[in-house]
Amino acid sequence: MIDFRSDTVTKPSDEMRRAMAAAEVGDDVYGEDPTVRRLEEMGAQMLGTQDALFVCSGTMGNLLAVLTWCGRGTSALVGRGSHVYSFEAGGMAALGGVMPVVLDDSSGAPSEEEVLSSVPLRGNVHFAPGRLLCLEDTHNSRGGLALGPDRLRAPSGAARSLGLKVHLDGARLFNAALAVGCSPSDYGAVADSIMVCLSKGLGAPMGSLLCGPADFVREARHWRKRVGGGLRQAGVVAAAGIVALGQWGRLEEDHRKAQLLADMLEEGGLGVQRVPCPTNMVYLELPPHVRREEFVSNLARQGVLVSPSPDGRIRLVTHRDVSWDQVVQGARLVLKEAGFGS
Amino acid sequence: MIDFRSDTVTKPSDEMRRAMAAAEVGDDVYGEDPTVRRLEEMGAQMLGTQDALFVCSGTMGNLLAVLTWCGRGTSALVGRGSHVYSFEAGGMAALGGVMPVVLDDSSGAPSEEEVLSSVPLRGNVHFAPGRLLCLEDTHNSRGGLALGPDRLRAPSGAARSLGLKVHLDGARLFNAALAVGCSPSDYGAVADSIMVCLSKGLGAPMGSLLCGPADFVREARHWRKRVGGGLRQAGVVAAAGIVALGQWGRLEEDHRKAQLLADMLEEGGLGVQRVPCPTNMVYLELPPHVRREEFVSNLARQGVLVSPSPDGRIRLVTHRDVSWDQVVQGARLVLKEAGFGS
Amino acid sequence: MIDFRSDTVTKPSDEMRRAMAAAEVGDDVYGEDPTVRRLEEMGAQMLGTQDALFVCSGTMGNLLAVLTWCGRGTSALVGRGSHVYSFEAGGMAALGGVMPVVLDDSSGAPSEEEVLSSVPLRGNVHFAPGRLLCLEDTHNSRGGLALGPDRLRAPSGAARSLGLKVHLDGARLFNAALAVGCSPSDYGAVADSIMVCLSKGLGAPMGSLLCGPADFVREARHWRKRVGGGLRQAGVVAAAGIVALGQWGRLEEDHRKAQLLADMLEEGGLGVQRVPCPTNMVYLELPPHVRREEFVSNLARQGVLVSPSPDGRIRLVTHRDVSWDQVVQGARLVLKEAGFGS
Amino acid sequence: MIDFRSDTVTKPSDEMRRAMAAAEVGDDVYGEDPTVRRLEEMGAQMLGTQDALFVCSGTMGNLLAVLTWCGRGTSALVGRGSHVYSFEAGGMAALGGVMPVVLDDSSGAPSEEEVLSSVPLRGNVHFAPGRLLCLEDTHNSRGGLALGPDRLRAPSGAARSLGLKVHLDGARLFNAALAVGCSPSDYGAVADSIMVCLSKGLGAPMGSLLCGPADFVREARHWRKRVGGGLRQAGVVAAAGIVALGQWGRLEEDHRKAQLLADMLEEGGLGVQRVPCPTNMVYLELPPHVRREEFVSNLARQGVLVSPSPDGRIRLVTHRDVSWDQVVQGARLVLKEAGFGS
Repeated sequence: MIDFRSDTVTKPSDEMRRAMAAAEVGDDVYGEDPTVRRLEEMGAQMLGTQDALFVCSGTMGNLLAVLTWCGRGTSALVGRGSHVYSFEAGGMAALGGVMPVVLDDSSGAPSEEEVLSSVPLRGNVHFAPGRLLCLEDTHNSRGGLALGPDRLRAPSGAARSLGLKVHLDGARLFNAALAVGCSPSDYGAVADSIMVCLSKGLGAPMGSLLCGPADFVREARHWRKRVGGGLRQAGVVAAAGIVALGQWGRLEEDHRKAQLLADMLEEGGLGVQRVPCPTNMVYLELPPHVRREEFVSNLARQGVLVSPSPDGRIRLVTHRDVSWDQVVQGARLVLKEAGFGS
Repeated sequence: MIDFRSDTVTKPSDEMRRAMAAAEVGDDVYGEDPTVRRLEEMGAQMLGTQDALFVCSGTMGNLLAVLTWCGRGTSALVGRGSHVYSFEAGGMAALGGVMPVVLDDSSGAPSEEEVLSSVPLRGNVHFAPGRLLCLEDTHNSRGGLALGPDRLRAPSGAARSLGLKVHLDGARLFNAALAVGCSPSDYGAVADSIMVCLSKGLGAPMGSLLCGPADFVREARHWRKRVGGGLRQAGVVAAAGIVALGQWGRLEEDHRKAQLLADMLEEGGLGVQRVPCPTNMVYLELPPHVRREEFVSNLARQGVLVSPSPDGRIRLVTHRDVSWDQVVQGARLVLKEAGFGS
Repeated sequence: MIDFRSDTVTKPSDEMRRAMAAAEVGDDVYGEDPTVRRLEEMGAQMLGTQDALFVCSGTMGNLLAVLTWCGRGTSALVGRGSHVYSFEAGGMAALGGVMPVVLDDSSGAPSEEEVLSSVPLRGNVHFAPGRLLCLEDTHNSRGGLALGPDRLRAPSGAARSLGLKVHLDGARLFNAALAVGCSPSDYGAVADSIMVCLSKGLGAPMGSLLCGPADFVREARHWRKRVGGGLRQAGVVAAAGIVALGQWGRLEEDHRKAQLLADMLEEGGLGVQRVPCPTNMVYLELPPHVRREEFVSNLARQGVLVSPSPDGRIRLVTHRDVSWDQVVQGARLVLKEAGFGS
Repeated sequence: MIDFRSDTVTKPSDEMRRAMAAAEVGDDVYGEDPTVRRLEEMGAQMLGTQDALFVCSGTMGNLLAVLTWCGRGTSALVGRGSHVYSFEAGGMAALGGVMPVVLDDSSGAPSEEEVLSSVPLRGNVHFAPGRLLCLEDTHNSRGGLALGPDRLRAPSGAARSLGLKVHLDGARLFNAALAVGCSPSDYGAVADSIMVCLSKGLGAPMGSLLCGPADFVREARHWRKRVGGGLRQAGVVAAAGIVALGQWGRLEEDHRKAQLLADMLEEGGLGVQRVPCPTNMVYLELPPHVRREEFVSNLARQGVLVSPSPDGRIRLVTHRDVSWDQVVQGARLVLKEAGFGS
């Protein structure tokens, strides 16, 4: 199988498995799992925040951020293409009573003006008070585009000038940092809380980190218990996360594979989205005569898995468990199935 | 004072006051207020629905519709410029746990394609299941544009083809029906529930009606009690609503006044939004050199009240309590304050 | 009809109707209804609080108090027999995400010890932080018992010592103040917010007041808009409320009628709940052989309406619209239907 | 350290670690983790339900059950001493808008009469419709009492006769089944959904199973994603769960240890709660002169960890990681610290 669906499918490496098997553990609800604690400290240090919290998933991390920063009846500014708005099953409203105010993020992040014009005046009873701006880097649905702290400074500054906090959905922040050439800790300047995933390109079997100020993390820990995310001997999985964090440099290879994939598909005749600062994703447009469902299922029968995107395109993601050879082979099969192959 | 801020400022007429003073009443929580019952039956008949519920406000009516149609964790499709999304303090999320999916309604209503592409596939755990499409007629923030049932058929049909219900925010539905030349009951073909306000151009002191199927109204009645909208001898205000409903034809005068106002302002040099089917609102753009806050407060000092809109424009609304003379006089003062008067 | 079901069935007096017909009004969402403002100031003064808010119902007043004092995920201490816990359709949880912690209030209010032992330690992630203690005076389901500020001092003080606020459901506070012989403003010492109803024994057609500090009222006003309780020319009903507030002394007559009713029923052989400080309610136990549903419907056929209580008893409430003669006549019919009459 | 605080502190056995290291995995959000699937099937089979869902914790399992069975605005009947009411941070209200109706469960489960009298009549707008009865076996705060399906039949039947569903918090169901001598699958007759924990006495590092009908599990899976409980290569921890489930018979040893502990403490002079069918917990009353905080911290300094219970008592739990010797040694130190030792 050549699995381009997502980098979430990466399986734990042997090194991770060994670390898991040997992990020193304790009851993390009592705060006594040394491996979890070590992972949280490592994450906080890498992101340059006071503290960090190990959570079950990126969705849980984003949800806890919203629940912690935003009281019931307030609003959070989110991009129209953002994961937190479109792919988390409406959790912010369903579980938090937080109203999304939807901004144009077609360039990857909303502009300063968009932010400034979207926060209602305080004290007017017709509006839900704005409390949070959510940003996303890399921006999944915008081609896996990397933005970097410099690009986020304007919307973040606008939000802060109005008293809002800024949360960064950094599910693939390490990809972004590599692509723009910054340190992960540089994001601390533009975000009050940051969620990073260990289970995507980094390859850990599960888990994410929610990083931020100590007070914020304390409150998020309470919400984590409420949603059922309080784990016991979680060190067994945190151990894999520590390995994952230590190897984030390897994501660079995923980017080069995606570059090769995009080049091959484009040269072969397919329309590929080109973004200023690409990472490990390729979005392609199918020719009008190709029916998407058939395309996806035909490819699957040939051992190539790809993701249909809600916007009508096809997403391919490169990661550790797709080899160089598979990239080449996969590109050929995709082209052929789209009618461009020889 | 010449009060162009909203038609909500209309005061009850003498006839309404007399009806209120003479109203036969009972305890409506026990379902025993004959005047309330009469108003509800009158509303249901006029809108062509099985039943209707007297509610305290348009916001309450819209909220009850969302709470009744949409379970926790589902989503409602709403226009970006709609009242229910932008001007009801985030109630659908805050109180109902319902996620708004925001559609482009810049033409007054979302297109069929926009609706079809915005409802996620059933059964995919990443999405909040779609349950409801909310439409608005007249469309307040789109210039008070009247749409009419014909124009709403396409988005409504698209939503229904996907199993969604359709709620119509008809705060100013009678204005719309007059403007497009249809019967209020024609809306029944395109909406499963309809909210109409008695307290705007119709002039009642308070209250709205939420109209729909009997089952829906029964459940909405339960939600009305929960939010604290169960009233006792509400016949005293329902009596004014009955008078108001009986005189909806008079809204036509408001439309002609708005026409005059728009013409005068435009001829005087101001940029006025022209919509295909206007009603009782005029939106104007201020020239770049005019500071909006000063403009509004200077006019107020001269006895002319207007509303700044969140989108940067100025809204003027005509209604029963603004006379023809006041329209003319108001237009002159507005022009002068904008730098166009003689 | 002799209607003992509730004092909510009282119809507005002629004086109220005249006041309503003559009321000076404005748009209260803009804060411009002078009659509403006058009622709110009158209420704040009578209760000894900084400010007050006119709301549609007692349920709305209690809901807004909970929404304002308690953030999502916190808890409110409520009596097992309290209205806010048992008769408001679960609004605090459904709409506010606030968890009730249920206390023993069989004596009318929880004891100091009960309060102290029910608030979880701060910072333990297993618990919902306590934010509010709700008290009720008179206590409806405990026989209409009046408690008075002195009796409430202990639980209120206990709650405050733990950092909680205290909300008083004073739906019938004026009955309580009369019965214990205190001033309504004495309650300010034991409660941070107070809800009083205008539509029960006071006889106004609808409406309640939520009284408290200015900051609290400002925030409650925002929540009132969210639930749809923002009204327009509400002065037409507020005018009746002003009349009602000015005549609270007349509740004393209701108490004497209830006393007569209880005496007659007890002398006739029925078991009647006797409370230390009774007001306008009589709870009676039916003999084992009497089937409650039949009893209630048979009486109704004879023109006497009574309320079955969820706890299995029958509640009778006296009020302005039950005359002395009707009390006597009603008592006779109740006794006869219960098998005790001659 | 002799850790009597909870059976949650048990660390994964070597066998579990080996299973985790060798587990075959896949992306469970796509339903492709064979080890997770195997664990879920094993759980469903053991509990006699159609399907099962692997969840992060017992709290998450209970929360998902409430979210799935109960719509917003409904109520769930819960015992006053139950974990779901008192120890899950108010999640049912905070996240689900579900109102708890609190029943007397001082004997371990509410009586049939208590259930029947606590469900409000349908259709009365004053009440939140009842949807669910939550039971708990073993009952943690009632001394770790085992109830068994026979004892639960009456309340369960009462609830079902009113149309309610029954959820069983079986965090320690295997302890209960051992103690009463039934098969775990016997519970299927009295519960519509069952949550069992893998991480308590069974010793897995994390995770629980939520078992029930296929439809229920499908919907719970959607809620699991919403709260952030969708995991990726969760097979690494599910593998430990499979080992744990296969060894539930070993809990019997924990029960005998608890018996020894209780006997020693009682013989030494301490007041110990005796329940009809004990499992792995001992609750003791401290003599009046012993200050609880000091008692707990002094013991800790001597290497014995115990839990203060919110009701003022001390809880001791036996489990795999407390040896027979440690039980004896622990009992001596507890007695000595309480003033009873030699």
